[in-house]
Amino acid sequence: MSRFWSDVTRRLTPYVPGEQPRHERLIKLNTNESPYPPSPAVVAAVQQIESDALRRYPDPESARLRQAFADYHGLHPDQVFLGNGSDEVLAHVFQGLLQQQRPLLFPDITYSFYPVWCELYGIRYERVPLGADFSIDTSAFARPNGGIIVPNPNAPTGLLLSLAQIRALVAANPDSVVVIDEAYIDFGGESAITLINDFDNLLVVQTLSKSRALAGLRVGVAFGQAALIDGLQRVKNSFNSYPLDAVAQAAVLASLADEDWFRECCDRVIASRERLTRGLEALGFSVLPSAANFILASPGNDRDTGALFLALREQGIIVRYFDKPRIAGYLRITVGTDAQCDALLDALPALL
Amino acid sequence: MSRFWSDVTRRLTPYVPGEQPRHERLIKLNTNESPYPPSPAVVAAVQQIESDALRRYPDPESARLRQAFADYHGLHPDQVFLGNGSDEVLAHVFQGLLQQQRPLLFPDITYSFYPVWCELYGIRYERVPLGADFSIDTSAFARPNGGIIVPNPNAPTGLLLSLAQIRALVAANPDSVVVIDEAYIDFGGESAITLINDFDNLLVVQTLSKSRALAGLRVGVAFGQAALIDGLQRVKNSFNSYPLDAVAQAAVLASLADEDWFRECCDRVIASRERLTRGLEALGFSVLPSAANFILASPGNDRDTGALFLALREQGIIVRYFDKPRIAGYLRITVGTDAQCDALLDALPALL
Repeated sequence: MSRFWSDVTRRLTPYVPGEQPRHERLIKLNTNESPYPPSPAVVAAVQQIESDALRRYPDPESARLRQAFADYHGLHPDQVFLGNGSDEVLAHVFQGLLQQQRPLLFPDITYSFYPVWCELYGIRYERVPLGADFSIDTSAFARPNGGIIVPNPNAPTGLLLSLAQIRALVAANPDSVVVIDEAYIDFGGESAITLINDFDNLLVVQTLSKSRALAGLRVGVAFGQAALIDGLQRVKNSFNSYPLDAVAQAAVLASLADEDWFRECCDRVIASRERLTRGLEALGFSVLPSAANFILASPGNDRDTGALFLALREQGIIVRYFDKPRIAGYLRITVGTDAQCDALLDALPALL
Repeated sequence: MSRFWSDVTRRLTPYVPGEQPRHERLIKLNTNESPYPPSPAVVAAVQQIESDALRRYPDPESARLRQAFADYHGLHPDQVFLGNGSDEVLAHVFQGLLQQQRPLLFPDITYSFYPVWCELYGIRYERVPLGADFSIDTSAFARPNGGIIVPNPNAPTGLLLSLAQIRALVAANPDSVVVIDEAYIDFGGESAITLINDFDNLLVVQTLSKSRALAGLRVGVAFGQAALIDGLQRVKNSFNSYPLDAVAQAAVLASLADEDWFRECCDRVIASRERLTRGLEALGFSVLPSAANFILASPGNDRDTGALFLALREQGIIVRYFDKPRIAGYLRITVGTDAQCDALLDALPALL
């Protein structure tokens, strides 16, 4: 604490990301990174960067990249917004679109950065309880609100809403922006990007960090009708003109151009997820049905899940444990390669 | 305008950066980039990036890089804050330290992003007039304030304050944070970083975009006592956990390790600045004394400087023109290579 901090700085409780170990050799199943590298074309694009691209400012509008995303999804470039990771995109969304008189709604168990951004921007919010099975009941969002944000699939549960459910949620709230946070959509869900031209209140946010294996480069993207995107551009251009560096822009262009690599990596993660789920169930775990590249799994109510998390850490396997109501009995496990999942399955019996 | 925009989004007048031409071959003297490439060691570091560094999240705390900056300046790592370009660093400084009850003070002619951040964060501000010769009179800042920010050297004038003047300004305002924005300090000024351990209210901000030729990678840095830096970390960790990507972190480490390259490039820019100044003066321009990698130069009060700016653009030479009180008679010209400066000097006589 310092007498020089602004009031908001005193109030903040910052988000704590999953550990990024710096030195140890660990099996890292804690931050939902891809277990497979980005396309070789991406690596080549990075390694071929010329020094002029480092020396000069990047295109502040990322015009080529916005055009590539537009082409990829059948949209117009003015329906595409880019940021330094989807966390930056979401921060601008909270300030630019969700800072309203009426409260923002989001699930009571969800991405724990949402209340942090609310605190940062002075946004009132209400948590909408998930069902006993952790499912999202979209009708529970039928209350006065200044905006709604829902991850699909949800995190850290992995549970998916259908496109029909998303459509109904967006249609039922025509006077609020409804943000669908699709960080994990490529692992089995149907994206709401196809609804963009139907609804002026829909914003879809995605990240390049998971399914495209580019967490190290920090690129996130939002899709919506031009008026919403224009609002985000105003915030971005009042915060930092150049959020995406030249290397990231070149790398993501290459990633979008290699559809086969992208699909194959997603398919492999999906297959490993089903295999890991069966393996954990065989050890007595209950596993929520996941459409993401992670699973939420409980060893049973009589177990000390926090102790199990630490015991796995001792064995060199990092997963994620949230000491919070309703999910304190669960581990969130990123789907790794089959070999990494097997190492986990092999280590568990001795620890249970 | 959209009914979904938050109030602040409606109010904003975003910053407009200098043009980054996408296709044309131009002599680009408009955004104060280095005319020389970054160190070959930097380019090698980028080209040797491994795909694992792209796939994984970067270190959210940039620990190695903070240590390297601390070692470079004789500070402790907890006195170093990093961001996605100095614009992001400054945005967090405005929200985290300068959002106070009393008004923020800055020069009336200065970096035009300052009032934009004030608008974004609802910060009241007062502009302190420069002298008739564009000099900053630090005693003019002796009025009630909730913070002070001054670029040194100032932009777009290029005028420098001495370290003694900076020390006096910081000492005279012990209850306010005084931010010295040293984007251009390496081209002839004396950094206030040496004062960090003397004053708990001093914050010094620098960029890697100018003197280190890394505008394309987006890295900025702030130095201050640990309590100030901790406040910035709280804001950063409530906004985006991972602002610096893996490539940028590796590149800047390499840049800090090649002191000879850095010094030589700065020296060459300084020599070219003096040469360009003499050349413009020979053509009848009046040129402000600059300690930056740009100069502010007037062709004389009877000239239409805006028209001259456009005529140079027609000739393929971009400089910067600000249609604002007191500086509308000037061009801001980035110091390029001697060949680029000569192209400007050769083109001007026909246009005057």
